[in-house]
Amino acid sequence: MHKTIVKVGIVGLGRLGRQHAENLAFRIPFCELAAVCSIDSEAVEQVKKEWNVPYAYTDYDEMLANKELDAIFIATPSGFHCEQIEKALHAGFHVFSEKPLGLYLEEAIRVQKAVNRNKEKVFMLGFMRRYDHSYAYAKKKIEEGKIGEPVLIRCYGLDPAKAMDGFMKFAKKNYSGGLFLDMAVHDLDLARWFLNAEARQVWAIGGNYAYTEFEELNDAETGAALVKFENNKMGIFVASRNCAHGYHIETEIIGTKGSLRIGTVPEKNRVTVFDESGAVNECSDGFLERFEQAYLSEAEEFISCILENRQPEVTVEDGVLSTCLGYACKEAFETGELKTVQYPVTAPAFGSLMRGESTIYDAD
Amino acid sequence: MHKTIVKVGIVGLGRLGRQHAENLAFRIPFCELAAVCSIDSEAVEQVKKEWNVPYAYTDYDEMLANKELDAIFIATPSGFHCEQIEKALHAGFHVFSEKPLGLYLEEAIRVQKAVNRNKEKVFMLGFMRRYDHSYAYAKKKIEEGKIGEPVLIRCYGLDPAKAMDGFMKFAKKNYSGGLFLDMAVHDLDLARWFLNAEARQVWAIGGNYAYTEFEELNDAETGAALVKFENNKMGIFVASRNCAHGYHIETEIIGTKGSLRIGTVPEKNRVTVFDESGAVNECSDGFLERFEQAYLSEAEEFISCILENRQPEVTVEDGVLSTCLGYACKEAFETGELKTVQYPVTAPAFGSLMRGESTIYDAD
Amino acid sequence: MHKTIVKVGIVGLGRLGRQHAENLAFRIPFCELAAVCSIDSEAVEQVKKEWNVPYAYTDYDEMLANKELDAIFIATPSGFHCEQIEKALHAGFHVFSEKPLGLYLEEAIRVQKAVNRNKEKVFMLGFMRRYDHSYAYAKKKIEEGKIGEPVLIRCYGLDPAKAMDGFMKFAKKNYSGGLFLDMAVHDLDLARWFLNAEARQVWAIGGNYAYTEFEELNDAETGAALVKFENNKMGIFVASRNCAHGYHIETEIIGTKGSLRIGTVPEKNRVTVFDESGAVNECSDGFLERFEQAYLSEAEEFISCILENRQPEVTVEDGVLSTCLGYACKEAFETGELKTVQYPVTAPAFGSLMRGESTIYDAD
Amino acid sequence: MHKTIVKVGIVGLGRLGRQHAENLAFRIPFCELAAVCSIDSEAVEQVKKEWNVPYAYTDYDEMLANKELDAIFIATPSGFHCEQIEKALHAGFHVFSEKPLGLYLEEAIRVQKAVNRNKEKVFMLGFMRRYDHSYAYAKKKIEEGKIGEPVLIRCYGLDPAKAMDGFMKFAKKNYSGGLFLDMAVHDLDLARWFLNAEARQVWAIGGNYAYTEFEELNDAETGAALVKFENNKMGIFVASRNCAHGYHIETEIIGTKGSLRIGTVPEKNRVTVFDESGAVNECSDGFLERFEQAYLSEAEEFISCILENRQPEVTVEDGVLSTCLGYACKEAFETGELKTVQYPVTAPAFGSLMRGESTIYDAD
Repeated sequence: MHKTIVKVGIVGLGRLGRQHAENLAFRIPFCELAAVCSIDSEAVEQVKKEWNVPYAYTDYDEMLANKELDAIFIATPSGFHCEQIEKALHAGFHVFSEKPLGLYLEEAIRVQKAVNRNKEKVFMLGFMRRYDHSYAYAKKKIEEGKIGEPVLIRCYGLDPAKAMDGFMKFAKKNYSGGLFLDMAVHDLDLARWFLNAEARQVWAIGGNYAYTEFEELNDAETGAALVKFENNKMGIFVASRNCAHGYHIETEIIGTKGSLRIGTVPEKNRVTVFDESGAVNECSDGFLERFEQAYLSEAEEFISCILENRQPEVTVEDGVLSTCLGYACKEAFETGELKTVQYPVTAPAFGSLMRGESTIYDAD
Repeated sequence: MHKTIVKVGIVGLGRLGRQHAENLAFRIPFCELAAVCSIDSEAVEQVKKEWNVPYAYTDYDEMLANKELDAIFIATPSGFHCEQIEKALHAGFHVFSEKPLGLYLEEAIRVQKAVNRNKEKVFMLGFMRRYDHSYAYAKKKIEEGKIGEPVLIRCYGLDPAKAMDGFMKFAKKNYSGGLFLDMAVHDLDLARWFLNAEARQVWAIGGNYAYTEFEELNDAETGAALVKFENNKMGIFVASRNCAHGYHIETEIIGTKGSLRIGTVPEKNRVTVFDESGAVNECSDGFLERFEQAYLSEAEEFISCILENRQPEVTVEDGVLSTCLGYACKEAFETGELKTVQYPVTAPAFGSLMRGESTIYDAD
Repeated sequence: MHKTIVKVGIVGLGRLGRQHAENLAFRIPFCELAAVCSIDSEAVEQVKKEWNVPYAYTDYDEMLANKELDAIFIATPSGFHCEQIEKALHAGFHVFSEKPLGLYLEEAIRVQKAVNRNKEKVFMLGFMRRYDHSYAYAKKKIEEGKIGEPVLIRCYGLDPAKAMDGFMKFAKKNYSGGLFLDMAVHDLDLARWFLNAEARQVWAIGGNYAYTEFEELNDAETGAALVKFENNKMGIFVASRNCAHGYHIETEIIGTKGSLRIGTVPEKNRVTVFDESGAVNECSDGFLERFEQAYLSEAEEFISCILENRQPEVTVEDGVLSTCLGYACKEAFETGELKTVQYPVTAPAFGSLMRGESTIYDAD
Repeated sequence: MHKTIVKVGIVGLGRLGRQHAENLAFRIPFCELAAVCSIDSEAVEQVKKEWNVPYAYTDYDEMLANKELDAIFIATPSGFHCEQIEKALHAGFHVFSEKPLGLYLEEAIRVQKAVNRNKEKVFMLGFMRRYDHSYAYAKKKIEEGKIGEPVLIRCYGLDPAKAMDGFMKFAKKNYSGGLFLDMAVHDLDLARWFLNAEARQVWAIGGNYAYTEFEELNDAETGAALVKFENNKMGIFVASRNCAHGYHIETEIIGTKGSLRIGTVPEKNRVTVFDESGAVNECSDGFLERFEQAYLSEAEEFISCILENRQPEVTVEDGVLSTCLGYACKEAFETGELKTVQYPVTAPAFGSLMRGESTIYDAD
């Protein structure tokens, strides 16, 4: 097999963007980081020089005009994803986009159509947790029947309290999508993946307990949702931006014959400290530390898909359906009412989205 | 201080009843097991002989006529509690009753009135978990401010799958109260205790995944409830009768400054086995193993209350309020609807039950 | 079966003595604490009054003259054990003695002879760990073949640094036996029990790292011993009086097909605290907390042996052989040399002590 | 800074060699895998083609003649290391060699001299554990004073029983160095690193419990060593080739104010399985799984040292001194006697090896 090199241009050089860029530049077989783009011209120049990147842009459209590139990697804030995906597809590139697909259902559906119009291009959404060794292992165990039929999933997505100030600064200027659409969306995707079922009804509660500033944002500091999935399967979601011990991503899947837990204690590493406090396991600082391997593996998979001319497991439909569920959680939280998850059933393109009979998606 | 001996008569000699009887006979300071009562005449005779118990009865009323006794300990099936409590109080005894207070709210309220009419007598309800060293320690930590203000509680009450056959036999002959009223009631009490708040709204879901016989019982094998408490506090409850790894009672309290977990892995003991499977912690078999110390400590507390002429922390109101919440869970599960927890606000005796303003208990 | 009551007199009312006394008074079936003896006359009077104990003594010989008693429970400092055991046996009582059997091998052998002269009396040595649920469970697993043939044992016996001041006060007035004879003796017994083999050679090292006062005592703050047992089995022992995180008793048995660990983290209870430090399991304070159940169970076993006219599993030989090994550790530490464990092979009474061929006990 | 690319030639394409080669080819910034060499001509051709490697050799000397290369990476069996290091240094290359430095002390010393003659070249020995995130974190904690002064280290190096057959095949054809020199040498290096002290005396025991074939090899299946370091510091080492649950590398450092444990349970990942067995953490399969990150990081460090013209923390002296200690363990095990660790004090080159006063290295 004669391998070629995939040339990638990345847009967005924030914390996660830089990590992606570094991975693409140095740690992905048969991949070359050929262009970087950011509105931060200093960052662009620094990366170009430091890592010997051939092209640097401060304008996204200019980068799209570079026909040496094969693929575009999008790591900008959530509000830009949809438009940038559409443009990149339209310009003929393979596209990787960070989650979420979009902040509004309408644009998510528009992107889905664009993806479906460009089926010969690889499109991948950054639900990186599916590529984390532990999550992938859990999925394999379930498929092997280790826990029987999964009936309940519990997902914790807790951001470190230390990151609160940074988030507040960001959120006051940008619409983040809120606790359920922005933060919980990873967990909503995991739930659909592990339960192999779509959501039907949801109730969500929450509030602001230590940080009243969330009131101004019309958002919740900490919240919980209970979701009824197809076949009476159950989902429990807890999201918070105020986790004292660090970045806590925990998932449990209860099946008819056993259960699995991933990340019960979000240990930073394999060191346990014994001191006057007792036996202490320090915890993960944040997503870059916890999901270092997953971010690398998803990018490897993206490049492999391009080289091997196949599509990744994570599809644009996963993005749309998780967004629908995130919306329902958000509405349930905001209204205090039980909500039926609304899927765009009238859109013909969605005919193929649904697992099982489509009738189950009508409002109850 | 001159200590006297408290003479106790116990009714009910099932698995838990025998354990209580043995504790009362041998392990509680200043306590004498002076009488045993059961419809199982063989069991009664055996215990009497084996442990040198002075009196043995097969008729509860006859035992109540024995004026040598100071206190009655009720360990019969749930359906008998209310009547036996009332009779024992009426006959002038201190009373300990196993949970739940009753299977119907009406009788629970009736018992409450009886208790309130006999305030000079000690009445204690068997919410033994509050006396478990770990739960008591967690409560102390919270009161010391270790985790700030508690905002979310998650309670797992999972019965071992091994006990399924035994439960089925029992449940086909007796009304157990169902998953939420019978099993989850311990957790509902813990939630109220740890959050220091009463429940307002609840949604519950669940089903039968491995054992269809639950359909006939109109009960759920596994279920989950999301509860909104006063001040936007949150409660998550998972109950199941189909836990592959054993008896799993786990509680987590998330506060504004930290969180506590009790029983994350329900280890049988301090032994870890390393073999081809990996590192294995065997799990608790059942409630008698897990709560051996708590059953002993609650009985000690009951006897101490009598000797020291004071009331235990667990009150009849705890029984009534937990039952109200259990009912709401049960109804939410049965109807699929969001339910407001109904408290007997019109009953004058309940004026004092509620923490905070009574108006919050009106239907939303 | 007609059960009688065993009347026990206890000598020694220190911390552990009081715990034993309370257990005997209230928590052991068919047992009555009929007499207490201590040179601390106030303590004696207080216990007598508080717990309604019939007899109280400040003189041990006077207690032995009380023919209402059936058994003597010895909980005095180590230096008194041997003489008090001999006297009690001579006076016709069943005897329980706290470990160690003695501080000098000569007196241990003398006690052994006394015990062997009084075979109709129950004699039990307080190696309570064998009665701890976890240790007993590990032994059962091994006997069931779960880990194949045990080949290596590792024992940690670490006393809390918090207890250092108390120990220093005690040790400056009393000869404790030193780190290996006083502290490690429990582990030496466990090793013989789990490996089912006797020790042959030992090297021990150690020193004083934070507390130079140990130099004056000719003792070590922290030490380690490597022991070669019969059949090339291995024993590793770490003992310390300076454990920052609390009372840490940990044992590992490695077998040909698996291994077992007991008490890897000496958790105080089932609560995990999550705060800025990470996930914290607080640790045991001391032996009374860690071995509460074992102290109770060994006393139950002692009383049961008397009632059922049988001998406990822990024998006087266990005391003598563990002492021999403890001596060898102590000598190896003090001289810096490799030592062969010396057993009293010339004493005829020891013919029956040894498992396997006696020749293996000759010096190498 | 203008970065250049370091061109590396690797020799050895066994399991670990291939992993190193893949890392060098794809995952190390500013590094190019420019040549591969192995006596297995098929493997060489396959790697060349698959990964587009410019040069491929079956003769090591031929590769050394390639002046396009900057550095040589040695991943051959232990018996070849010394000669290949010397040749590569002599040919003017930077050199990375897998551990151990050599199987015989004489050759290790010869290599040391060669390294010292080529101080302008980077030389690095593959003690990769120092680059494992957890070990590096533990070292940092110790340097920060978290546990006070380290006084005892316990190291477990247990190979999976599953790998026994493979090892036997290898060991019957090649001299591995034995349990202490081959396997334990990583731990001996870690002990020196964490304790910051050199070893003085050692006693080692062990044997063959399940696999008698070790007798023929004059080696031990499982062994234990107790080492006295400078300043009375203590080292405990357990090595085994028969670990039922997998690859178990565990290290504990006890200090005067606390202790650290690394890898208490060698978890494969963050998944816990709950089934009839209990709560199960599956364990690492082998060194490639456990130390994936460390193998990558050490190679990154090697390339960085070349680019930045500095030497790595792991020196040739670490290799020599660990070998001296490994030899003493091996001799103590073989003779059954207490051994003083012999360092080549007469060699002038060693004057600088020793920490503290050189006199402490004289035989006792």
